[in-house]
Amino acid sequence: MRKQLLLTFLSLSLIGIQSKAQEALFGAQQITSPEIHDDSRVTFRISAPNAENVQVTGDFLPTVKMETPMGEMDGPGAAELIKNEQGIWSFTTESLSPELYSYSFIVDGLRTTDPNNPFLIRDVASVTNVFLVGEGQAALYQVKDVPHGSVSRRWYDSPGLGMDRRLTVYTPPGYEQSKEKFPVLYLLHGAGGDEEAWIALGRTAQIMDNLIAQGKAKPMIVVMPNGNVIQDAAPGEGSEGMYKPNFMVPKTMDGTYEANFMDIVKFVENNYQVKANKANRAIAGLSMGGYHTMHISRYYPNTFDYMGLFSAAIMPREDATGKVYSDIDGTLKTQMDNGYELYWIAIGKTDFLYDANTEFRAKLDEMGMPYEYVESEGGHIWRNWRVYLTQFVPMLFQ
Amino acid sequence: MRKQLLLTFLSLSLIGIQSKAQEALFGAQQITSPEIHDDSRVTFRISAPNAENVQVTGDFLPTVKMETPMGEMDGPGAAELIKNEQGIWSFTTESLSPELYSYSFIVDGLRTTDPNNPFLIRDVASVTNVFLVGEGQAALYQVKDVPHGSVSRRWYDSPGLGMDRRLTVYTPPGYEQSKEKFPVLYLLHGAGGDEEAWIALGRTAQIMDNLIAQGKAKPMIVVMPNGNVIQDAAPGEGSEGMYKPNFMVPKTMDGTYEANFMDIVKFVENNYQVKANKANRAIAGLSMGGYHTMHISRYYPNTFDYMGLFSAAIMPREDATGKVYSDIDGTLKTQMDNGYELYWIAIGKTDFLYDANTEFRAKLDEMGMPYEYVESEGGHIWRNWRVYLTQFVPMLFQ
Repeated sequence: MRKQLLLTFLSLSLIGIQSKAQEALFGAQQITSPEIHDDSRVTFRISAPNAENVQVTGDFLPTVKMETPMGEMDGPGAAELIKNEQGIWSFTTESLSPELYSYSFIVDGLRTTDPNNPFLIRDVASVTNVFLVGEGQAALYQVKDVPHGSVSRRWYDSPGLGMDRRLTVYTPPGYEQSKEKFPVLYLLHGAGGDEEAWIALGRTAQIMDNLIAQGKAKPMIVVMPNGNVIQDAAPGEGSEGMYKPNFMVPKTMDGTYEANFMDIVKFVENNYQVKANKANRAIAGLSMGGYHTMHISRYYPNTFDYMGLFSAAIMPREDATGKVYSDIDGTLKTQMDNGYELYWIAIGKTDFLYDANTEFRAKLDEMGMPYEYVESEGGHIWRNWRVYLTQFVPMLFQ
Repeated sequence: MRKQLLLTFLSLSLIGIQSKAQEALFGAQQITSPEIHDDSRVTFRISAPNAENVQVTGDFLPTVKMETPMGEMDGPGAAELIKNEQGIWSFTTESLSPELYSYSFIVDGLRTTDPNNPFLIRDVASVTNVFLVGEGQAALYQVKDVPHGSVSRRWYDSPGLGMDRRLTVYTPPGYEQSKEKFPVLYLLHGAGGDEEAWIALGRTAQIMDNLIAQGKAKPMIVVMPNGNVIQDAAPGEGSEGMYKPNFMVPKTMDGTYEANFMDIVKFVENNYQVKANKANRAIAGLSMGGYHTMHISRYYPNTFDYMGLFSAAIMPREDATGKVYSDIDGTLKTQMDNGYELYWIAIGKTDFLYDANTEFRAKLDEMGMPYEYVESEGGHIWRNWRVYLTQFVPMLFQ
């Protein structure tokens, strides 16, 4: 009996050790990082006995002024880790406010991921570790024990762009069993993003599940398309294979996306149980997606009853010569005359697009075009876009 | 005109630089790694001017013998990179055969990800970079310009386990528009895996899209559940939040999963257009999932017509005392008597489970229980499990 027990233990251990060996997993570190304490302080640890200097950099640290070719700008701060006798470096923050944070280590000048934290999110070409300090606002970003919607990656045919393209769709809890029809929010990413951005960095599924469970949002479908018209899908998910994405992708702001946006709406309305009318369509986006939202909603000026411009990258553009941009003021006026429920503009006080948004609001004021305006702290960051989503969604389809 | 052009350029650059700054993306490296050459040699590069030694380790290198507490075992090899005057280290492989490979850098003893490659896959708690050398067998792992199925993450109610649980579902191209009913393959992960394993490391969606497009596989639904009954979802995707996963999760091989598997089958058959009969159900799994496949298919001995045991972790277990394991031989015989189309066993010649599988086959031989057997090169690795999937799927539902 004793021998059999031992044998079982050995077999189990063997599976662990050998298969890890064969999968090139030797060398994994057996320490905890990050450790989130009950008082919301966070300890970072990394074993690096040979290193001379280890820092952590992330969006929970105060920003620092950095010299760039464009002048002085805000950059992420860094904190020094301290080495113990076992060669394990550590640093503990002050109490952090609830938020989804991202960070990297810098080991002797080399930026690296945290080998003890398997949670990473890609933002354009950069992959950083993430952690969540829950409760408060960030409780909306957690997976709670509430009914969950489904998240699908689907491909739609875009006749206008001549290709099959991938998009991400959130359907609310119970959608599949329901005979009801639902309203739709089209949610657009920023420059360098794709159909993965809102679902990963934006925590869209968790936000929607939680707001719906709390009765604060109507059950709705959220469609997250890819706004880079030269791509069929996110890098690594499409026919171009795996390549390093760029921040600026060609043809993203030349009108092509806006002109072909109804391919997406048609696909959704032909393939989902939706209320296919203006009162049940909303469109919103961050940065470039806010620019797209503004242009799509006025180019199809009787299509959406709800518009959300989150830190919108609204600015005069030399390459904006396409038909879509030929009569901006006229189509805005038509959109206004057709009427809508909500034109919502939000931006952070230190966002580099603050002035552009102020100018845009002045133009709307001059036209007498109604909008609601929210000004938050902070800049052009995901923290704000998640918050804006939680503020925007409860106002829809009420 | 000139000023406006400049302004546009500046604005664009500004978006890039400042938002990257604010998103803690400063310090990104602007080099290419890995570079896959036309002749399938691969160059790895990393900028690390302060480093004294840089290696790359990965499953494309010959294994080396390593001392472990269990004795000498195969571990992943490593290759030395060479530094140039700019502080950029590089190493170029020989021509690699087509495959999805994984790798890490080791910088002065510290294992790190490749800062220039945004493609990473988590395997249990370890995250490694990946790259694909296409063509040949690996062409099946690429996203090709063929009709694509949908991949959904859904939650099902498990009355037996008393919780809502997450699973991954592949539906074939055209499923949503079709009035047809489809057969179903239940595809199970190994120890330390979850409902993300087959879709990420297994390239299931790409394999299915390509095999269906080539006419080599019947259009089918592939259901990838979570086999860890104490979890509602993969780490980071469930109510436990983000935590470092373990290789061995409690209660994975004590019969609880097998005893509650019909909760999954019922959910699928109530929620998808499926042919709900034995002839149109297949079940397969790797390692622990092969163990689950063996036990589920004999415990419900008239439910599946197709079984796939990929490197199955079949071994006598002291903790296997539950009702599910009370009459293994008897239920296997019942399964045999009830008949089935295919009982497929595959294993690599150097797999540490080779002997256990040989013993299992001897038992089946003795019983006269028919099976097909494939012996491949290599060990207990994802490379084999992807190949087995491409071999198994074309035999289903024909």
